[in-house]
Amino acid sequence: MSILLATHFGRAELAQWQALLQAALPDEIFVTQRSAAHDNDDNNSDNNSDIDIDIALVANPPAGALHGLPKLQLIQSLWAGVETLLADATLPADVPLARMVDPAMNAAMAETALWAVLSLQRGFFDCAAQQIARRWQPLPPVRANEICVVVLGLGQMGRAVALRLLQAGYRVVGWSAREAEVPGVQCLHGEAALPAVLAQAQVLINLLPLTAATHGLLEARAFAQMPAGASVVNLARGAHVVDADLLAALDSGRLKRAVLDVFQTEPLPPAHAFWSHRQVTVLPHMAAPTDPRSAALIAARNVRALRSGQPLQHLVNRTRGY
Amino acid sequence: MSILLATHFGRAELAQWQALLQAALPDEIFVTQRSAAHDNDDNNSDNNSDIDIDIALVANPPAGALHGLPKLQLIQSLWAGVETLLADATLPADVPLARMVDPAMNAAMAETALWAVLSLQRGFFDCAAQQIARRWQPLPPVRANEICVVVLGLGQMGRAVALRLLQAGYRVVGWSAREAEVPGVQCLHGEAALPAVLAQAQVLINLLPLTAATHGLLEARAFAQMPAGASVVNLARGAHVVDADLLAALDSGRLKRAVLDVFQTEPLPPAHAFWSHRQVTVLPHMAAPTDPRSAALIAARNVRALRSGQPLQHLVNRTRGY
Repeated sequence: MSILLATHFGRAELAQWQALLQAALPDEIFVTQRSAAHDNDDNNSDNNSDIDIDIALVANPPAGALHGLPKLQLIQSLWAGVETLLADATLPADVPLARMVDPAMNAAMAETALWAVLSLQRGFFDCAAQQIARRWQPLPPVRANEICVVVLGLGQMGRAVALRLLQAGYRVVGWSAREAEVPGVQCLHGEAALPAVLAQAQVLINLLPLTAATHGLLEARAFAQMPAGASVVNLARGAHVVDADLLAALDSGRLKRAVLDVFQTEPLPPAHAFWSHRQVTVLPHMAAPTDPRSAALIAARNVRALRSGQPLQHLVNRTRGY
Repeated sequence: MSILLATHFGRAELAQWQALLQAALPDEIFVTQRSAAHDNDDNNSDNNSDIDIDIALVANPPAGALHGLPKLQLIQSLWAGVETLLADATLPADVPLARMVDPAMNAAMAETALWAVLSLQRGFFDCAAQQIARRWQPLPPVRANEICVVVLGLGQMGRAVALRLLQAGYRVVGWSAREAEVPGVQCLHGEAALPAVLAQAQVLINLLPLTAATHGLLEARAFAQMPAGASVVNLARGAHVVDADLLAALDSGRLKRAVLDVFQTEPLPPAHAFWSHRQVTVLPHMAAPTDPRSAALIAARNVRALRSGQPLQHLVNRTRGY
C-alpha cells in the first residue's frame, strides 16, 4: 500500500515534508501525484497507483484530490483547520478524517496571542504609529490584571491561549459552543451566554472553528456588545468576521484596534481597506504555522495506529465540522 | 518635620503622587516647593520650611534641589535609575539614598522584554513593514527554544526579565559585573567573560546600571562579537550605546534590529536617525514606567522605617553607582 501526499505545497516545501515523513515511516511508500487516469475517469479504480493508496496526508488539496481512491482508510490533515476539506463535496464520506493537533502549533498560537495582548496592553502598536510621526509620548502604565481577555473557542488552541494569558496575569474568560473547562479560567458556553461574555471583552481573541454557526459571528451586534475601546484579535478564520462591520466599528471608535491573521480572501487583496487602516494590524496567516518537524511525526503516529489497528487520534466529527 | 517632593512632574502627576503619598502616610506633612530663600542663598538653613525637611522624595529633580537641607536624613528616589541624581555635585554626600525597587516595575520591564523577544522571534516587526508595503509573506516557524537571549545586568529588573524569558521557553544566559545567581539561568560575570557571552546573543537585552564601567559598553567591538543577524534591545540607558556604532552595525547587516527604549538625549530629537531607520524600533522610555499606585506605597515604607528606626531598604552604594 502507499500514502498519497495531496497538498498545495511548492517543490521545496513538499520535499521537506517527504523527507521528514519518510524518516518517520521508513517502510512506507509515498506518492505525491495520482495517476494521469484520475483526470479522465474519476471512477477508475483499476489504476495501479491509485488502487494502492490507503492513506492520504493532505494540506489544502485541490477539490476532488481524494475522489476515486477505493482503498482509502485514513485522511490525515497536516493543517489544523479542516473546513476547506469538508467543503469539498467529493471528499469520501466514510473515511476517517483526522485533524492536525500539534503542541508546537498550540505554543505558537499562544505566543501570537500573548504578543497581541501585550502590544495592546502596553500601547506598543501606538508606539509604532508615534515612531512614524516622530512623536515622543510615553503611555501610562496599564497592568496585566487590569485587562480582561475573552477567548472564543476552547479547543486545543483556545485552551493553550487561555492558559498562557492566565499565566501572564490577565483576567481570562473563555467561551465555547459546548461546555468546556479550562483550569483557572472562567468558562461559559452556549449562545445565550455570549452577550454577557462579550460585555467583558476588553480584548476579544477568536479561536473558534469555522462552522455554519460561527460564520460571521463577529459582526455589528457583537461589536456593539463589547466595551467601548475594546480590541479584536482574529486568529481563527477570516469568515468569522464581517469585514464591513469591523471597519465601521473601528471608524466609529467603538473598537480601538483589530489584529487580524486571517481573512475572507488570502492572500489579503492589495486593494483591501485593512492593509492601510491605522487601527488594523495585518499578519499574513502565520499565527500558528504548521511546523513540519513536529507535524510529520504526529501524522506518522496516526499512520502507525492505522497499520497496527490502534485507535486513530483527533478524528473530525463531520456533522459538527471540527 | 516634613517631606519634600522634588520632581520634574507636571501639575496633575504631582497631585496624583501627593494624594497617594498622603493616603499612605496620613501623619506626614508634604511640601512640593522649597522656600524662595533657597534661590538666593544656598546655605540658608534658618528658613522655616527648609529646616523642617528631613526626607526628600525625588524624581529627576533639578540639580541643586537637595542642597542646603540641614536635617535631611533620607533621599528616596521614586525612579529606579539614580545616575542623574549621583551626577549632581551638590547632592548631600552623607545622606542615605534609596532607589525605587517596585515589583510592578519589574513586571512591566519583563513584559516589555518578552514583547520585544516575541516580536523578534516570530518576525512581527517584519510583518509591520510588510503591511506598509501591502506584502503578504508568511514567515517560517521559529521556536522559543531555538533562540538564545542574553540579559546584561542581573539586578532586580534583569533577574525579572531573565526569569520571565526562561519561563517562556527561551534559552537565557545572564551576565553581570559581579557574581550573581538566577535559578535556572546560566550566569557569567566579569569583563573577561563578556565576549563569550556576547557570542551567544541572538538577542541581547541590556539592563545594566549606568556607571563609568558600563558607559558606551554597546559599541562596535561588542556588536562584532555577537552572532551575525543578532538584535539588540536596550531597556537601560541611552548612554550604554554608541549610537553611530549601532547604526553602522545595522546598516552593514551585522545586526538585524535594535529595539530602543532609552536614548542619549530624551525625548529623542526629531532629527535623530533612529526615528526613521527601518531596523530600529523606538519606544518613548516606557519599558517600565513608575506606577505611582505601587511606588508611593514602597516609598512610604522607607519613610516609616526611618521614623521608627528600622533599616532602610534598597540603599544605593554611591561608589558602585547603583
